[in-house]
Amino acid sequence: MCELLGMSANVPTDICFSFTGLVQRGGKTGPHKDGWGIAFYEGKGCRVFQDPQASADSQLAELVRTFPIKSNLVISHIRKANRGKVDLKNTHPFVRELWGYYWTFAHNGQLKGVKKEPLKDFTPVGTTDSEYAFCWVLSELKKKFKTRPKNEVQLSQEIRKLLSKLGKKGVSNILISDSKYLYAYCSTKLVYITRHAPFGEAKLIDADLSIDFSKHTSPKDIVTVLATSPLTQNEIWTQFLPGEFQVWKEGKQWQRFSPDKENRSA
Amino acid sequence: MCELLGMSANVPTDICFSFTGLVQRGGKTGPHKDGWGIAFYEGKGCRVFQDPQASADSQLAELVRTFPIKSNLVISHIRKANRGKVDLKNTHPFVRELWGYYWTFAHNGQLKGVKKEPLKDFTPVGTTDSEYAFCWVLSELKKKFKTRPKNEVQLSQEIRKLLSKLGKKGVSNILISDSKYLYAYCSTKLVYITRHAPFGEAKLIDADLSIDFSKHTSPKDIVTVLATSPLTQNEIWTQFLPGEFQVWKEGKQWQRFSPDKENRSA
Repeated sequence: MCELLGMSANVPTDICFSFTGLVQRGGKTGPHKDGWGIAFYEGKGCRVFQDPQASADSQLAELVRTFPIKSNLVISHIRKANRGKVDLKNTHPFVRELWGYYWTFAHNGQLKGVKKEPLKDFTPVGTTDSEYAFCWVLSELKKKFKTRPKNEVQLSQEIRKLLSKLGKKGVSNILISDSKYLYAYCSTKLVYITRHAPFGEAKLIDADLSIDFSKHTSPKDIVTVLATSPLTQNEIWTQFLPGEFQVWKEGKQWQRFSPDKENRSA
Repeated sequence: MCELLGMSANVPTDICFSFTGLVQRGGKTGPHKDGWGIAFYEGKGCRVFQDPQASADSQLAELVRTFPIKSNLVISHIRKANRGKVDLKNTHPFVRELWGYYWTFAHNGQLKGVKKEPLKDFTPVGTTDSEYAFCWVLSELKKKFKTRPKNEVQLSQEIRKLLSKLGKKGVSNILISDSKYLYAYCSTKLVYITRHAPFGEAKLIDADLSIDFSKHTSPKDIVTVLATSPLTQNEIWTQFLPGEFQVWKEGKQWQRFSPDKENRSA
């Protein structure tokens, strides 16, 4: 299994504090030592850092941890290899361009039989079922919409439908983004916290580190962090329900599809 | 205009020395201060570092300069913006997946009217004519070959044809790779040097730095570096002819299409 980390914010925000907690789980406080990666969006542009080494020992992770790249939207992943060997090409998040947007994808879980699904226009470079699933999602989106649909709700619904279908193939917690929205699907484990004024202090679970957010923010800031499990010990994180799909934009929950609603519309 | 740097080697090799020379031209010894980027292949995997800041002042460039990432194939670029504003999304090298390979592309020049060429399956994210040209090259390759052709010579010939067509639209020096080969097209300025045993000392033009390659290599190593203009002051670099197309594999010139041959086959 792997661990996920995502961020959606209404101002460019650095993720150094949360990332510091996550990387400890990559070989130190957790077993996810088979690589790590992080994608930072800056407008429509996207920077990705990836390393097949354990994040807890990675010189590059140390740079990302200390180099305050500010972004409105981040997706990160630490890997414990199940399918596909430890290799740069198997390291999340994966990136593809669709409709003139860079899409990024990170996945926690295992998807039985996903490689039987037909692909069109997107081909995996590596050998993971995760990258295959990502290529399948984009293939289906491109089949359905020749260009990016103007109706963003319709796009969200389609993504939810595809991720729910993946969710039926096994454990499948997913963060996916197109630079505008952070889409999150929970099959088993995903939590989030939204921080806004008045900001307080937070203390990591995995490292002896605290931060007083009031010293690093303005009163208008809204920052949501999503993770596989809570990263801080003194804050209340909200759990996703299994089967729940949420869409985040600029720190705010833009849409939420409960598993019930999903079943009703099936 | 911009400057290009490429490397093809038969053993994983770090490009720290050459990159140190190149980054000086990004705001210090040269005017290419509108961003920089570098793609390192590791097998089929690819890591890209990009920054819209001047490379001479970039903290990230400093990391890449000092962090010895070993790779058999590298493409790098420093940018002086002509078309498309200074922005992460306009920073070379650009990356797309085709046939299950990550393709990277860096371009020096300006291409008049390229945006009138029709695209299929690949859409620019940014606003440069360079990224548009890259999307056009991949669109045409995908139209011609549904999957990667087994005949690599046929693939090279097709790439040469497309890059030559771009070359007729203005200044267009190009490095492009699919992880297996480094394809280089020269419209006006491109040089290369192949280093092999017995290795000697090299001294940069743009910084007070020398290296004794014999201390960092084995007798079997073959390393070719391509650049817009020579990076060292005490070695002999070979100039490409205008219109020349070369394909490099594991440090060796795998194919060379002279401009004459190109004209004959037109």
